[in-house]
Amino acid sequence: MTYSAFDHPYLSGLLGDEAVAAEFSVAADIRAMLAFEAALARAEARNGVIPDQAADRINGACRAFSPDVAALRRATAADGVVVPELVRQLRVAVGGEAAEHVHFGATSQDVIDTSLMLRLKAIAELFSGRLGNVASMLEECEKQWGERPLTGRTRMQPAIPITVSDRLRTWIEPLLDHQDRLDAIDGNLFAVQFGGAAGTLEKLKDKAEAVRETLAEELALVGCPQWHSQRSAVADFANLLSLITGSLGKFGQDVALMAQSGEEIVLAGGGSSSAMPHKQNPVAAEILVTLARFNATQLSGIHQALVHEQERSGSAWTLEWLILPQMAGATAAALRLAAELAGNIRRLGAA
Amino acid sequence: MTYSAFDHPYLSGLLGDEAVAAEFSVAADIRAMLAFEAALARAEARNGVIPDQAADRINGACRAFSPDVAALRRATAADGVVVPELVRQLRVAVGGEAAEHVHFGATSQDVIDTSLMLRLKAIAELFSGRLGNVASMLEECEKQWGERPLTGRTRMQPAIPITVSDRLRTWIEPLLDHQDRLDAIDGNLFAVQFGGAAGTLEKLKDKAEAVRETLAEELALVGCPQWHSQRSAVADFANLLSLITGSLGKFGQDVALMAQSGEEIVLAGGGSSSAMPHKQNPVAAEILVTLARFNATQLSGIHQALVHEQERSGSAWTLEWLILPQMAGATAAALRLAAELAGNIRRLGAA
Amino acid sequence: MTYSAFDHPYLSGLLGDEAVAAEFSVAADIRAMLAFEAALARAEARNGVIPDQAADRINGACRAFSPDVAALRRATAADGVVVPELVRQLRVAVGGEAAEHVHFGATSQDVIDTSLMLRLKAIAELFSGRLGNVASMLEECEKQWGERPLTGRTRMQPAIPITVSDRLRTWIEPLLDHQDRLDAIDGNLFAVQFGGAAGTLEKLKDKAEAVRETLAEELALVGCPQWHSQRSAVADFANLLSLITGSLGKFGQDVALMAQSGEEIVLAGGGSSSAMPHKQNPVAAEILVTLARFNATQLSGIHQALVHEQERSGSAWTLEWLILPQMAGATAAALRLAAELAGNIRRLGAA
Amino acid sequence: MTYSAFDHPYLSGLLGDEAVAAEFSVAADIRAMLAFEAALARAEARNGVIPDQAADRINGACRAFSPDVAALRRATAADGVVVPELVRQLRVAVGGEAAEHVHFGATSQDVIDTSLMLRLKAIAELFSGRLGNVASMLEECEKQWGERPLTGRTRMQPAIPITVSDRLRTWIEPLLDHQDRLDAIDGNLFAVQFGGAAGTLEKLKDKAEAVRETLAEELALVGCPQWHSQRSAVADFANLLSLITGSLGKFGQDVALMAQSGEEIVLAGGGSSSAMPHKQNPVAAEILVTLARFNATQLSGIHQALVHEQERSGSAWTLEWLILPQMAGATAAALRLAAELAGNIRRLGAA
Repeated sequence: MTYSAFDHPYLSGLLGDEAVAAEFSVAADIRAMLAFEAALARAEARNGVIPDQAADRINGACRAFSPDVAALRRATAADGVVVPELVRQLRVAVGGEAAEHVHFGATSQDVIDTSLMLRLKAIAELFSGRLGNVASMLEECEKQWGERPLTGRTRMQPAIPITVSDRLRTWIEPLLDHQDRLDAIDGNLFAVQFGGAAGTLEKLKDKAEAVRETLAEELALVGCPQWHSQRSAVADFANLLSLITGSLGKFGQDVALMAQSGEEIVLAGGGSSSAMPHKQNPVAAEILVTLARFNATQLSGIHQALVHEQERSGSAWTLEWLILPQMAGATAAALRLAAELAGNIRRLGAA
Repeated sequence: MTYSAFDHPYLSGLLGDEAVAAEFSVAADIRAMLAFEAALARAEARNGVIPDQAADRINGACRAFSPDVAALRRATAADGVVVPELVRQLRVAVGGEAAEHVHFGATSQDVIDTSLMLRLKAIAELFSGRLGNVASMLEECEKQWGERPLTGRTRMQPAIPITVSDRLRTWIEPLLDHQDRLDAIDGNLFAVQFGGAAGTLEKLKDKAEAVRETLAEELALVGCPQWHSQRSAVADFANLLSLITGSLGKFGQDVALMAQSGEEIVLAGGGSSSAMPHKQNPVAAEILVTLARFNATQLSGIHQALVHEQERSGSAWTLEWLILPQMAGATAAALRLAAELAGNIRRLGAA
Repeated sequence: MTYSAFDHPYLSGLLGDEAVAAEFSVAADIRAMLAFEAALARAEARNGVIPDQAADRINGACRAFSPDVAALRRATAADGVVVPELVRQLRVAVGGEAAEHVHFGATSQDVIDTSLMLRLKAIAELFSGRLGNVASMLEECEKQWGERPLTGRTRMQPAIPITVSDRLRTWIEPLLDHQDRLDAIDGNLFAVQFGGAAGTLEKLKDKAEAVRETLAEELALVGCPQWHSQRSAVADFANLLSLITGSLGKFGQDVALMAQSGEEIVLAGGGSSSAMPHKQNPVAAEILVTLARFNATQLSGIHQALVHEQERSGSAWTLEWLILPQMAGATAAALRLAAELAGNIRRLGAA
Repeated sequence: MTYSAFDHPYLSGLLGDEAVAAEFSVAADIRAMLAFEAALARAEARNGVIPDQAADRINGACRAFSPDVAALRRATAADGVVVPELVRQLRVAVGGEAAEHVHFGATSQDVIDTSLMLRLKAIAELFSGRLGNVASMLEECEKQWGERPLTGRTRMQPAIPITVSDRLRTWIEPLLDHQDRLDAIDGNLFAVQFGGAAGTLEKLKDKAEAVRETLAEELALVGCPQWHSQRSAVADFANLLSLITGSLGKFGQDVALMAQSGEEIVLAGGGSSSAMPHKQNPVAAEILVTLARFNATQLSGIHQALVHEQERSGSAWTLEWLILPQMAGATAAALRLAAELAGNIRRLGAA
């Protein structure tokens, strides 16, 4: 269970983040997939597609149901997606006539993409708060040391005198922009995915649009036509994650360079060395650069996954699964470390 | 002079686009850099920083001036940027006392980044029009053949019957979204860069902000504080370019797959083969996939360039120069080829 | 614990591989790090740097020792590396005077990079065997159906008749080449890393080279000067992983295209759909393409990590940790799926 | 003609290299394609496939022939490759009965890939020499200042004292390794591509292998079965280019950091600033980092192009054309700048 440093038993001390890791846990994914199935049943009942009683029973089952994960694993190996087996198990749990109304008109991508959107939405809210927090901490630094002189440096050479505030603003402004952006997309990027077998909701006939709108409302997601083979929203979110880590990477790179010359910053904390106990390594600053380069690398893969052939590309879709969670994990770690680093600043500018 | 297929003597037949190539010509770049210098002089005269007469003279010189490009090349080798030598030559052209007022308070990145923004803005307008054009052509296809049946395919296997319109909408919708986005950023992404030596406009003292606002107005760009080491706007634009080529790549991939099975599409045009004169290759469709993968690759480099150390990173900045023009070139080629491909569709759906 | 699909509770059914996952487990990493410490003690004793008795005691402790992983996690958060705390715990376990001889002259990167090399070497051997196995299975296909006709296709259009064997050789040859390459690097790529605090083995004085050679011999690794800031071997190994998944991606892409047209291949297995129980999705073939694109994306990050400033870059080094294990995981999954897919071929060429 | 900084009218002063640019000129490409056609005619005559007289006439025409590039451009737009039109023009130039023997049994990829190999081989020889030259210059530095003390730095913090030689070896060793590698591949990577329409050389019947071997011999390339859809050699070469720029990027990063602290290095040269005439910017050092990050980015695209569907993918193949020349251009620039930078070192280590 240790491929990823973001949830590695000891590397996660450095690179992990529990709040965001929780959103990518199996528990959270299953909970969100069941939320989709429950909301779908309610939406279909509200629009007269399935009986109210069936919807009630499905909702009850979704609340109580805990799947056999080993069976999910075996089935995913064959099917390439977890949903057929999850639905099979859920139908058994629902039982009776209501069982056949489970997942009516939906297909795998509806469940998986909507689960993703529910969780990305939660993550976006979390990140917005953290961006604001880091910005506030840096604005606190500005209050304390903003007027002190600093050597402005261009092309890694001393240029002209600036102030601590001048450099701080180049760290703070992008964070505030990203926060605004996260807040803005909250109302338009996180959309329900609902299209059925090939995007046409063919089983729902003239009630398709109404059910989709109700479903979106039930889940507090944006209602819009199915987008399964149109992945711009996913790519846009990934772009924003990489903008965040890129801006924090600049902050980290600057701090590491200031710590190297050693006169322009005083930092508390810092890592120790197995060979040189006297050293104080600006570990958090370095790792911010790492995480920026990681997300910049990954973003390319998410954009490769835009080429989604026909009504659904198993190939392109799975590529997202391999990349997007870790981009969120990298962003979470960067925001956590940036707050830690900002909190460890004991002085900026000349003494 | 043939490193790039986008302006290669014969590959540009396939991969070039003259309108966008023109924006990356030396002539256009120098014209935009001189527009900056002229507008700066006007803005500084309007705000009482330099004499009106000097501004007039600088404006006149900027209109008439044609630099010694060989000397620019030699100086760029040493300086890493073209501006010191360009300004030196321009001062000679201006002559007299006005010469010392040229470029007052500005530095290289102000000139180069603002020139980039002026040209990207023109390109964005061009691309918006082309997106609308391709979308219209596909909507025309929808009118003609939209109700015909098509086999919906998921995971590259026949799924259920859909209509030609169902697939066409997955091609058209993203193009309309991208057009909206281009139109929206027109008013807020393309910002003047003006910061002087280290971003503080120190030479302009209390007139700094006023000059910057006037300069933005003169150039019809957004006015905002200097952003030289904050590259989110550049990365965002690159992201949008890659979304466009990604969406067109899906269109191309779908057409190539339809042409392979041979019953769902009839195409005019198509390339010939040196070994098999009978073949009709769906070249434009294939190249749309190529260009999507190209931009997806490049986007990573633009995001690597977000880590801009201190007040200006020569290293990160130059990385953008190596990548961004060709992302625009790829997008231009994709839009041109998509229109060509859409125009070559003679039938969609079963006969 | 579910950021990575390669060890995800249910996605690993599709994308996991137990043998390779084991090499990236904490248990395997700690075992390899302790193997380094034990071998170092033996090498230093054999060269008269530390007492034989101390080496014996350290070797005994390394065999029996099981670290407090929660403490490792806490310390990694501060230090950026696990080694200082691991060594501290190990010294406690060793106890007495021998404790001070633990890790003598070494530093964190020596332990971590050598542990990586030990495990990559095991993985290379495993992959070599699997490549041979997939190649054999495809050669078996060649024996059965190699002489059957197949439509040669170029630019996704029918070209001229070829044989099943012609296409099979384009799948098989690269696998045999990669196997040869893995076998060849076995003797020269996997090198011990031993340099001490800044690469100079300053504590070992004139015995440095002898200890390093003995250490390499003890661990059955190549002996060579320290290479901590010279990462070509890591990048080369990553390149080879991506060549393997690239070649398997071509195999997968071809199979998916053959399965789409439906006449040139008969496959057993195949995934089911939650909406369309009749479908047989060529899931393994699709995922081979996914894994090729994943590794092609990741390789970029490994090459970004070549820019290792000064004697050790915490930033570049950590970037490898985020990427390399998953490239190995992707390769493992691809080899597993390729064997599964090859085994599911029931016919190639026309009936 | 200015998309690429590598052949841009003024940026090429910084980023260009004339020797390598020449290998990517249209003149060089056409010369190499005609060399293929001439050698093919000779090889086919030697093996009795075409008359000796025809071969003589084709050879004479290939020496004298200068194609109509504008017509090549128009045809490439339609065909996706230049070869059909080039062959058509060449046949006209040859005239008579010999015309029909031009290009016999070959197809576009044979001509284009073999032309690429001929030119990459020349580039590899050039790069080998340059690597040796940079290594020698750095070894000269070692002779002069190698024994001086330097502060070893890890994680961007002072660690322990080392010598100038210790750091120099980390710059030099990888360059010597890469030189060895380039020399080694000279005899086995650059292979003729010859497969005909779909790789089977069907028109040459039982003489196929003999003609291919003779052709390889005529061109001084490795003889091996057609590899058009197996791109490992191209990807391997690209990997090596990125290893070279990565190693030079480390050198550049180190120099930029040393120049920043200002006591450990004295450099001649250095760029000037339009705002700060006093500054000496370590431009070459910065650009080495840029070029490392550029090639690291591009390598991903070359590996994406490994997924070559069926007998030839127009899509994947064209992606190489967009990327590989510029990777070579970046490497050329890096080697040129590294020599310049090494030659500008006036002192290493404390005064």
